[in-house]
Amino acid sequence: MVDIVHKIGIKAPLSQVYAALSSVAGISGWWTRETSGDAKLNGTVNVLFRAPDGTEKGRMGFELTKLVPNEDVVWRFSSGPEEWVGTDVTFQLIRRGDYTVVLFGHRNWRQASEFTAHCSMKWATFLLSLRQYAETGTGQPAPTDLKIDDWN
Amino acid sequence: MVDIVHKIGIKAPLSQVYAALSSVAGISGWWTRETSGDAKLNGTVNVLFRAPDGTEKGRMGFELTKLVPNEDVVWRFSSGPEEWVGTDVTFQLIRRGDYTVVLFGHRNWRQASEFTAHCSMKWATFLLSLRQYAETGTGQPAPTDLKIDDWN
Repeated sequence: MVDIVHKIGIKAPLSQVYAALSSVAGISGWWTRETSGDAKLNGTVNVLFRAPDGTEKGRMGFELTKLVPNEDVVWRFSSGPEEWVGTDVTFQLIRRGDYTVVLFGHRNWRQASEFTAHCSMKWATFLLSLRQYAETGTGQPAPTDLKIDDWN
Repeated sequence: MVDIVHKIGIKAPLSQVYAALSSVAGISGWWTRETSGDAKLNGTVNVLFRAPDGTEKGRMGFELTKLVPNEDVVWRFSSGPEEWVGTDVTFQLIRRGDYTVVLFGHRNWRQASEFTAHCSMKWATFLLSLRQYAETGTGQPAPTDLKIDDWN
């Protein structure tokens, strides 16, 4: 199994970062504006990504399988790209000094491919968007997300 | 073994991206200004990172163990943080449409830790700096690199 892991430090309260990861309004503020569903334990959240011209780029669904306020959030993907189905996105939050530290993982990829490399880089830019959203109230979610390569 | 993998697309010629990865002047344009040494096959390159206030944050050395012009560059770390010694940083270059695609790997970590997560995120921001350097001539190398967390 292959895991993508990242770390980012955010100068915002734990509760604000937790809300950004565990609510429809929060997720739509930094990942994709088209977020909908039922953001509660075992509820399903659906996300849709578009290019700036409106073209659909992809859609996915995940269940919130772990929600420990201000500590842990786990998303388990049940639909979307084949490589994502059955994988977990994990966020562990730790307060240290001025920072809410986020330990991010996208875990249990069956193998590493060019798509994994694309997603790893893309997650890094979305974590910068998460930081900006939590610190300033304005992130860079799709469709205005930072483009990184020939795929998106 | 654990690998960090990323992908970025750069709107600059293959030869320009290759030079940015395989010469002292190139590396100092996007990774750290304090780059020195002998950037030829099996030569050693030394890099030193400082905080904006001048404090030393770390230093490392690597050998260029593979140099295939416009295709492949491998750096093997021989000194620096214990976790890095013996690991390889690999860059595979592919021309596709308007892009020079860089497939990046930092390979053969003995295990994944918070330091791995920090480095993965930090590499992503340095790849954005590499893109900016190759496309515009001006990157964001240390000590003016983007800070990502409580460590740097």
